[in-house]
Amino acid sequence: MEQIAQRILKAPKSNGVEPGVYLIGAGPGAADLITVRGARILAKADIVFYDALIDISMLEWCSGTKLVQVGKRCGSHSTTQRFINKQLVDAATKHLVVARLKGGDPLIFGRAQEEIDALDKANVRYEIVPGITTALAASAQLKQPPTTRELSRTLMITTLPGRCAYVDHKTAIYYMARDQLSDVASVLISQGYLADTPVCLMESVSLDSQRSFGCTLGDLRFGDVQHHFQDKQPVVIMVGEVYRKKLQTLIPFFEAPINFNALQAIS
Amino acid sequence: MEQIAQRILKAPKSNGVEPGVYLIGAGPGAADLITVRGARILAKADIVFYDALIDISMLEWCSGTKLVQVGKRCGSHSTTQRFINKQLVDAATKHLVVARLKGGDPLIFGRAQEEIDALDKANVRYEIVPGITTALAASAQLKQPPTTRELSRTLMITTLPGRCAYVDHKTAIYYMARDQLSDVASVLISQGYLADTPVCLMESVSLDSQRSFGCTLGDLRFGDVQHHFQDKQPVVIMVGEVYRKKLQTLIPFFEAPINFNALQAIS
Repeated sequence: MEQIAQRILKAPKSNGVEPGVYLIGAGPGAADLITVRGARILAKADIVFYDALIDISMLEWCSGTKLVQVGKRCGSHSTTQRFINKQLVDAATKHLVVARLKGGDPLIFGRAQEEIDALDKANVRYEIVPGITTALAASAQLKQPPTTRELSRTLMITTLPGRCAYVDHKTAIYYMARDQLSDVASVLISQGYLADTPVCLMESVSLDSQRSFGCTLGDLRFGDVQHHFQDKQPVVIMVGEVYRKKLQTLIPFFEAPINFNALQAIS
Repeated sequence: MEQIAQRILKAPKSNGVEPGVYLIGAGPGAADLITVRGARILAKADIVFYDALIDISMLEWCSGTKLVQVGKRCGSHSTTQRFINKQLVDAATKHLVVARLKGGDPLIFGRAQEEIDALDKANVRYEIVPGITTALAASAQLKQPPTTRELSRTLMITTLPGRCAYVDHKTAIYYMARDQLSDVASVLISQGYLADTPVCLMESVSLDSQRSFGCTLGDLRFGDVQHHFQDKQPVVIMVGEVYRKKLQTLIPFFEAPINFNALQAIS
């Protein structure tokens, strides 16, 4: 029993790719922010199932491989999760190396649990290759650690508007919350965060189309703000005292150009 | 002003390496868990300053480069942070491409703020290349997402014993806390986490020497437990309801072999 557990948890060998299914993190978007391990497996995979959200340049790693687009893009039609699970299990019976390329890290808000359960149930061998999650890539682009000794020693990564009391000046990074900006701000302020707590917003992290803006929680509390973003582009929201100095170098969010498509959709 | 901010935050080009200093995340340990961008810059760097904690196999990316070991390893003598800052700034005047290789992600508990401040002050051009932080690598090895729709939608990454009330069943991953295990457990239980909340402990994540154990918060609360770990190896502590199923597959922590060196050091 002990030996089995240790063997299961051993790191995969880097030379050669063993048969099986690989859940691979693509990273935030830029093709060279995938891990070396991830890129090597993509190059050797027989079939690659990739998220619609993956930047197309990422697929250059899989030259000659069969490519199947799955998953969803905000607002448009998507393959259901159950069908993706089935596709992965079926592919494992027909191909030696099956890759499932997911945006960011496969285990951070990626609904990987459902794919893992399906692979476990079908007794398919699989491994998980981590990826750079957006919070880390956005911090690198901003050149700002989310924690510093003086200001915050805790990073919270979440999709919720936040229910965590302001006790240790923690930094919070929100995923998938571009349509909940005013909720996030209201809840955090009601919990004790000051209205002038700095906020950095970053759209399309690491891609050529990346844009960054600064504001405060108080700025975000009221009004429709989503129309400042491009359609369907993911936005990461970084909140905390550590970002105060950065505010001076960022474009104020309310000076960002208005996206009239988005404005029309709201009204 | 807008244009400057946008230019500063643009993603670096992947082809060719511009002169400057690069703070690069090495990832958790395994050489192929660095990003493609990180590996490419290491291959082209004129000089690489690397943390003592970096696994030696990582340095194969820098063949032919001047290598300088800096930083600390728990318990042994270390280069002071101020001296590292000075070395980076000095190197930038003598070399075109200077790499600073840090364990995990450079901005997650890596004291990067001090290096960033020194580079800013000296007006040195620099970029940050994110790396796989241990929390993500450990989750991948464990094959367990730290958040799932049903059980937790927040991941807290921290070095503190924890001061966050148990309101949303959040998952907590602790870094640099192997010597504070009982503190972590006591504080979390006092905040409302159940004593039978599952805990996974992983040592030397992603390396051949990786070991994983399971227990509950209640198990950790009393007694000396550090002597179950290998000397100087980093340990990551994962706490939360999402780990319950994994407990069945992991070696119980208190059945882990005792490290008699560590036991002697404690007594």
